[in-house]
Amino acid sequence: MTADAPAQTPRIWTAALIVIGDEILSGRTQDKNVAQVATWLNVQGIRLKEVRVVADDMDAIVEAVNLLRARNDYLFTTGGIGPTHDDITVDAIAQALEVDVVIHPVARAMLDGYYATRGGLTEGRLRMARVPDGAELIENRMSGAPGIRIGNLFLMAGVPHITAGMLDALTGTLEGGLPLLSVTLGCWVAESEVADLLGSTERAHEGCQIGSYPFFREGRVGANFVIRSTDQVRLDACALALTSALEATGREVTPGGI
Amino acid sequence: MTADAPAQTPRIWTAALIVIGDEILSGRTQDKNVAQVATWLNVQGIRLKEVRVVADDMDAIVEAVNLLRARNDYLFTTGGIGPTHDDITVDAIAQALEVDVVIHPVARAMLDGYYATRGGLTEGRLRMARVPDGAELIENRMSGAPGIRIGNLFLMAGVPHITAGMLDALTGTLEGGLPLLSVTLGCWVAESEVADLLGSTERAHEGCQIGSYPFFREGRVGANFVIRSTDQVRLDACALALTSALEATGREVTPGGI
Repeated sequence: MTADAPAQTPRIWTAALIVIGDEILSGRTQDKNVAQVATWLNVQGIRLKEVRVVADDMDAIVEAVNLLRARNDYLFTTGGIGPTHDDITVDAIAQALEVDVVIHPVARAMLDGYYATRGGLTEGRLRMARVPDGAELIENRMSGAPGIRIGNLFLMAGVPHITAGMLDALTGTLEGGLPLLSVTLGCWVAESEVADLLGSTERAHEGCQIGSYPFFREGRVGANFVIRSTDQVRLDACALALTSALEATGREVTPGGI
Repeated sequence: MTADAPAQTPRIWTAALIVIGDEILSGRTQDKNVAQVATWLNVQGIRLKEVRVVADDMDAIVEAVNLLRARNDYLFTTGGIGPTHDDITVDAIAQALEVDVVIHPVARAMLDGYYATRGGLTEGRLRMARVPDGAELIENRMSGAPGIRIGNLFLMAGVPHITAGMLDALTGTLEGGLPLLSVTLGCWVAESEVADLLGSTERAHEGCQIGSYPFFREGRVGANFVIRSTDQVRLDACALALTSALEATGREVTPGGI
């Protein structure tokens, strides 16, 4: 290797997310976990690569789990780890991994403590101590039931603020790469008027992607342009070039977006 | 066939949805199209069976399109049909279907009219008239660019209120089955305390599914139980049974949910 050897492309760490639940597919519940998990992953230097929403259906979960855990560094699931009959995530993961479902002694002790003053550990509640054999627990400060980690799989709650607590417990524990940085530039312009300019600016700045997000507000059209890169220097250069190019057409650019 | 022959299970029509866009996977944008499309499909008597969120990446879109269009009656996509370089949905669908991309003459005329007083039809804007060969247009009253229909595929906008307009234009045009009906019952109870009761009630009512959606509000835990069925009589019977069973434990039930 010499100093002139081409720089190695930094490894990109990826994750997938499976959102489990009939309530999302029926439109009853607006999912909030995709955005929450995505944002958290970015900070860990892990890229959310794909998301699937599947029903409370064993075969659908098993199919998605086995495909996505193989082609990503990490796989997260949200939903289906509660105490009721429609909570089948643990069973589905165990089936996908071909392991048994067992009662985790620490989860059982945690639930015992939590429910000591709340009516005791019933059979229904004990369901929340079931894990695929070989799993570790993810701490849950919000309620009694823990999340579950097994291999590169992370089973989280469906209720967003409980998921948030579990993500918090995982912060800093997952190996990742360079975080994806971004700069947003807002402009009162129809994106169609600057489509060519956006394309040529992106092509001229390797390692940067430019996304265009149009909106219609106060009777006017505008767009936010989001530049993403793992390299701060390249990102800044691209943002500067795009700002100059937009200003050269006589438009004002709002750093941070509109 | 006699009057005693078992009733034929009604055909269930299914759809899948592919949400296309880096902005969803980066966490920048909170998706609203899953819930919107799901709710609209329910009214058409079509069940949203699975959702995937994929990046603005040709291979990822093609893979998802070819799998999901084959195993569902309908496939919807949202996002990536605008005028900029990151809008690659039309090209990806054409590649998946192995057809060319062509300029649709009606779309071109619509855009011509729309942009006549808005600076004219530039090359960037003309991109929005590109369709996979053989496609029809879906009306868009909100802005110039139409949605696209080809075979069992429906390409919609990413911006939710434009998607809403396109769904509106499609209302009543897609064959479906019996709409999925639902009843919601709210109760101030920890779902873990009634887990067995929920499971046994569901098992006793064929053709009904009961979902349990816990919450924590005003310092108390509670849950909404959503019963779903395509059969109104069975649905009502199941709702009555669950109400009675919950009331028999000394709890109040709130019809419509809490």
